[in-house]
Amino acid sequence: MKKFAVLGYGTVGSGVVELFYKNRSKIEEKAGSPMELGYILDLREFPDSPYAEKFTKTIDTILADDEVKVVAECMGGVEPAFTYLMQCLSHGISVATSNKELIAKKGAELLAEAKAHSCNCFFEASVGGAIPIIRPLHRCLAANEISEIYGILNGTTNYILNKMLTDGMTFEDALAKAQKHGYAEREPSADVDGHDACRKICILSSLAFGKHVYPESVYTKGIREITLEDAADADALDGAVKLIAFVKKLGDGRILPAVMPMFVPHENMISRVDGVFNCIEVCGDAIDRAYFCGRGAGKLPTASAVMADIIEEIKHHKTVFSQDWVDAGTQNFIAGIDELVCGMFIRFAEAQNAAACCEKLTGYLKAENLADFSEDCVSAVDHAALITCPMTKAQRDQLLAKLAEDGLNIAHWMPVMDA
Amino acid sequence: MKKFAVLGYGTVGSGVVELFYKNRSKIEEKAGSPMELGYILDLREFPDSPYAEKFTKTIDTILADDEVKVVAECMGGVEPAFTYLMQCLSHGISVATSNKELIAKKGAELLAEAKAHSCNCFFEASVGGAIPIIRPLHRCLAANEISEIYGILNGTTNYILNKMLTDGMTFEDALAKAQKHGYAEREPSADVDGHDACRKICILSSLAFGKHVYPESVYTKGIREITLEDAADADALDGAVKLIAFVKKLGDGRILPAVMPMFVPHENMISRVDGVFNCIEVCGDAIDRAYFCGRGAGKLPTASAVMADIIEEIKHHKTVFSQDWVDAGTQNFIAGIDELVCGMFIRFAEAQNAAACCEKLTGYLKAENLADFSEDCVSAVDHAALITCPMTKAQRDQLLAKLAEDGLNIAHWMPVMDA
Repeated sequence: MKKFAVLGYGTVGSGVVELFYKNRSKIEEKAGSPMELGYILDLREFPDSPYAEKFTKTIDTILADDEVKVVAECMGGVEPAFTYLMQCLSHGISVATSNKELIAKKGAELLAEAKAHSCNCFFEASVGGAIPIIRPLHRCLAANEISEIYGILNGTTNYILNKMLTDGMTFEDALAKAQKHGYAEREPSADVDGHDACRKICILSSLAFGKHVYPESVYTKGIREITLEDAADADALDGAVKLIAFVKKLGDGRILPAVMPMFVPHENMISRVDGVFNCIEVCGDAIDRAYFCGRGAGKLPTASAVMADIIEEIKHHKTVFSQDWVDAGTQNFIAGIDELVCGMFIRFAEAQNAAACCEKLTGYLKAENLADFSEDCVSAVDHAALITCPMTKAQRDQLLAKLAEDGLNIAHWMPVMDA
Repeated sequence: MKKFAVLGYGTVGSGVVELFYKNRSKIEEKAGSPMELGYILDLREFPDSPYAEKFTKTIDTILADDEVKVVAECMGGVEPAFTYLMQCLSHGISVATSNKELIAKKGAELLAEAKAHSCNCFFEASVGGAIPIIRPLHRCLAANEISEIYGILNGTTNYILNKMLTDGMTFEDALAKAQKHGYAEREPSADVDGHDACRKICILSSLAFGKHVYPESVYTKGIREITLEDAADADALDGAVKLIAFVKKLGDGRILPAVMPMFVPHENMISRVDGVFNCIEVCGDAIDRAYFCGRGAGKLPTASAVMADIIEEIKHHKTVFSQDWVDAGTQNFIAGIDELVCGMFIRFAEAQNAAACCEKLTGYLKAENLADFSEDCVSAVDHAALITCPMTKAQRDQLLAKLAEDGLNIAHWMPVMDA
């Protein structure tokens, strides 16, 4: 009999408890051992819960029980989760967490503590909800040099952008609808301003490249400025506006992580991932590219990922899976957003003569003598949105200045995802 | 220093060797130990290879070296691969194989032998090439009751079907092009008749449901009968014809695995997976559904999966990962294809008046009093292809008979993938 405990009885925590009792025999078979839910830690009272006798208000109860092998943390926020998990790890108790904020901010410390005490700190649920991505990235793609990762890592913003396109809703209306359906919080900043996606790309970047990438090092821009016209014109150009979290490895070995709305061409599967689904594309030197898609949030989908961690930690209690990274201190291995080379999706304020507009732009690009310039580098529709070939920031600035000089008012531009 | 050996120096085997030397430092870091390629077994001569001194023609050389911890089998075929791997396992050497025919036919025996000798038999590369699917299915989704798996598991047939649709090629021309590009063998039966996909769905079914599913128990139909018209009419009905390998769990606990061309609606991501890519959809009670896509074949993509197995076996040499199933002997837990409930994509031999045709069909379906009948259950285009609601075989037979009675000649029908 091996015991585990759950910290936090909110959506995810109660999902873990529900899933354990629902599929208990299968879970125990996979874990290779009978299992018992020992404790649920929550400061609130749940007198009517069928598990009422399992509730505790203090971590000490859990730490004092030698039979507890694994603790699942589903509280959210950095404290007191961080303190609790450090205590668990120092007692040799493995931990599984769905808390992306915690891992993005304190991952290196937690992982080092786990290693020091020969136990594990798993966090499969922290990115992509139900989608298996942490193990696949760390273990299944272990023989690859990872070059790029792109993802829709926030279902709320994807739902909003989708509603804007398909139902012609404004950002505000789509947000209100997402809030009504429970997909968005009353205070939606973590989602719509990109912070949630930022934490997740921090985790994937740290895992893929071995050094802790902190959220404050990552350029992050949300979707508040995206308009109906952006969505419609992107569609007309055979693509979609998506909030993309990405990280690229640069030629000099540094990495460039960022979160921002991007134009994603329909050739890429990511452009067609709709609603609350998440999708992650991983590029490596042996695999070329692989995609992982599924529900990025929700009670049971997230619980599924937490439970998978618990099962492995119960089954391989003495095996240390070094799914980790180090705190490299300074973040000088991270390039700033100005170093991003990308194509531009440009939408003009007024409808333009497509052919004339294209000709002008082609003229500028030729004058700039862009290395990978070709006649195909500009496509346009007559509603006056177009896509350029990839350029450096200096080139983009110059191009935008020239267009302005020429009286072509730009309503909005955003980078093109080139994967 | 931990040694591994490679059996078979064809496309995949040479890819494993290439990838090891290409990314050696990263691979050793992940494996937590210096590694050495000890031997390459191949009956052919490779005098000009930079690894010429590593070649051996007998497995005994490898078995006699106590430093060999892992053997990667990339020979293909059942024998002598099976005999060699059983010998390795009985010596406590873990094995990693890309050989789907071997695992589909002899998996239960190999896995039992691995368990008996406290080592591992991994086969990540046997399904989906570069795509991480075996570990994700077994470990990351361990807390789920799996209900269905659907996949494009053969890139060659997907390439052919794609060419038929996009370039208007006949099956024969598309096959010839695939052969020219090296995507199809000179003797293409394993691909086009569905045997390759059948082996792969056997492996996924065995893993998901715990009992060995043998290829001869699986209804298998290839793509030889698919015509240009099928591809075009499917497209007109917002879907695509794909060779789908699937397994469903039935209400009585039995499973129904099969391989056949199906109409896949565009709402499902699988319909848009083109070229030589593979895509696997896994449905479970907690996750709802997750998708895994990537290159299903090729030298380095497949080598990536084999190398991931090698790394884990080197790193966790004494840890037994029970990624296994049992030989249940009789296959009476497997339902036959006649038990498949599915909608039909029906294409008539001559163009039809869509409205009249729909009305007739609706009449029949109403008379049949189908449980889930609704006015929406029939969609049609005037080129005379339509889609029905899900039906049992008896209902399908009756419907087809009625249509024939009525003088409506059916050119072709195929099941609709309803995931």
